[in-house]
Amino acid sequence: MTLAERVRGGEIGALARAATLIENRKPEAAALLRELWPHTGRALAVGITGPPGAGKSTLVSELTAQWRARGKRVAVIAVDPSSPFSGGAVLGDRIRMMRHAEDGGVFMRSMATRGRLGGLAPATFDLALLCDAAAFDVVMVETVGVGQAEVDIARLAGVTVVVLVPGMGDGIQASKAGILEVADLFCINKNDRPGADDLARELHAEAPEVPLLRTTASEGLGVGELLEAVEAWTPRQDRAARQWTGRLRELLMERLATRIPDVALEKAAERVARREADPYSVVEEFDRKIRMETGG
Amino acid sequence: MTLAERVRGGEIGALARAATLIENRKPEAAALLRELWPHTGRALAVGITGPPGAGKSTLVSELTAQWRARGKRVAVIAVDPSSPFSGGAVLGDRIRMMRHAEDGGVFMRSMATRGRLGGLAPATFDLALLCDAAAFDVVMVETVGVGQAEVDIARLAGVTVVVLVPGMGDGIQASKAGILEVADLFCINKNDRPGADDLARELHAEAPEVPLLRTTASEGLGVGELLEAVEAWTPRQDRAARQWTGRLRELLMERLATRIPDVALEKAAERVARREADPYSVVEEFDRKIRMETGG
Repeated sequence: MTLAERVRGGEIGALARAATLIENRKPEAAALLRELWPHTGRALAVGITGPPGAGKSTLVSELTAQWRARGKRVAVIAVDPSSPFSGGAVLGDRIRMMRHAEDGGVFMRSMATRGRLGGLAPATFDLALLCDAAAFDVVMVETVGVGQAEVDIARLAGVTVVVLVPGMGDGIQASKAGILEVADLFCINKNDRPGADDLARELHAEAPEVPLLRTTASEGLGVGELLEAVEAWTPRQDRAARQWTGRLRELLMERLATRIPDVALEKAAERVARREADPYSVVEEFDRKIRMETGG
Repeated sequence: MTLAERVRGGEIGALARAATLIENRKPEAAALLRELWPHTGRALAVGITGPPGAGKSTLVSELTAQWRARGKRVAVIAVDPSSPFSGGAVLGDRIRMMRHAEDGGVFMRSMATRGRLGGLAPATFDLALLCDAAAFDVVMVETVGVGQAEVDIARLAGVTVVVLVPGMGDGIQASKAGILEVADLFCINKNDRPGADDLARELHAEAPEVPLLRTTASEGLGVGELLEAVEAWTPRQDRAARQWTGRLRELLMERLATRIPDVALEKAAERVARREADPYSVVEEFDRKIRMETGG
């Protein structure tokens, strides 16, 4: 059996091995994904993003439990922040997911972000497709919505939930930063805190068309309703094509990045550092060389 | 007189116009920067990064005042977060810089981040070079260190200051996320808060070789010492070349991004969305086409 067949057959070891190939951006991964592609398109892909401390991981863990209770197989891809400032208790968050560790119907993968050439987005899409092909019904992608790259990943999921907490002035900030484009659903978590109603009013005023759910995930409150809202959410018709434009661009940029020859770049950087060349002429020269070497 | 000559002559209007060309990634900008390059390399480029609420902008404003008092011309490039969650009072922060608004020896530029093709880094480097050519003695690049892209920008400055505040467990998190590679200097700001000594001990234990300064920027305390530490900091010999490798890669990636034809990509995305094509074959095909069209 090929690796693809074993992934489709639900072998956990094969899935883990495939995920590692994808994470490490091995050339075999592209062939594998091409083979798996006809078996994708069935999973519900859910992006979950929001500020540090919003309780995203608790929410993801609760959603996992409730989907499991409904007989669904659930995959979670957690994009771990590269920055030390973006997450509170990353380890603690992961521990909350541990209760699903023994459950074969749950697959969980954390992606480290630092120093990844071409960014995180391509590996995240590919992992989500892998889980889709492995017959998971739900694939959640959890990112801390703190940087441009991180928010962009969440927005490329099928449906994106922006999780906010009362008392942080998130509503006003969300409006200023154009987060409205990213949110398909708002979730006010820690809804028992003071300020929840104010936040709900603010969000409704800013984006009346975006459904708003309220949860206290630590007690499981409202999570069933959120789950149903996620399942009921229907995208506008042009949505999938727009998202694929973004995903294809990310995949293609990653591919183009591999054309830059490291050693030559380092040598050129030394020349620039010694001020023997200017960076703009160097870039021009590389651009031309890359064309010539790969062309025709 | 050319725009480059007027920039070098210190005309504020010319500088602002050039900055706009750079921000909008106009083709004229590359020629301008190439003309300016021989007149760069004199400014001290300082990256300032750290978590939201660390008081970075107050610190930057204080550093500006103290460098001005020493007769230095100061430029500040603030990379505004695209995410609503990364900054507290962005507007308030900017207001703090307003006291320098009437001062011709201070140039300030905020960069919006959303939806920028090829990321923020290239425009930030280019703006820093522009300010360098316009005879600013110090160019500070302030980013909220919350996402991969944002931290990477700060680390590509000449000297990078990581600003932390007591009581947030930043030391431990910094160690976990590999922030040690980014910091040339640590600055514990809000040093009057409880926990400052603990944080200092933690940081020293994790990275004994990184100098540690302490400030209470809101009262100007310790800012002079930080300024002197920044000026006194000397990079390791291979540093500039390594940084230029990163900068050249960013500039080159941006250039390669412009080769992706938007309309064709959107058409392909529609095919993928309809499941008439798989994304990996589409990317392969584009990769080949870009080679053929640009090659030989």
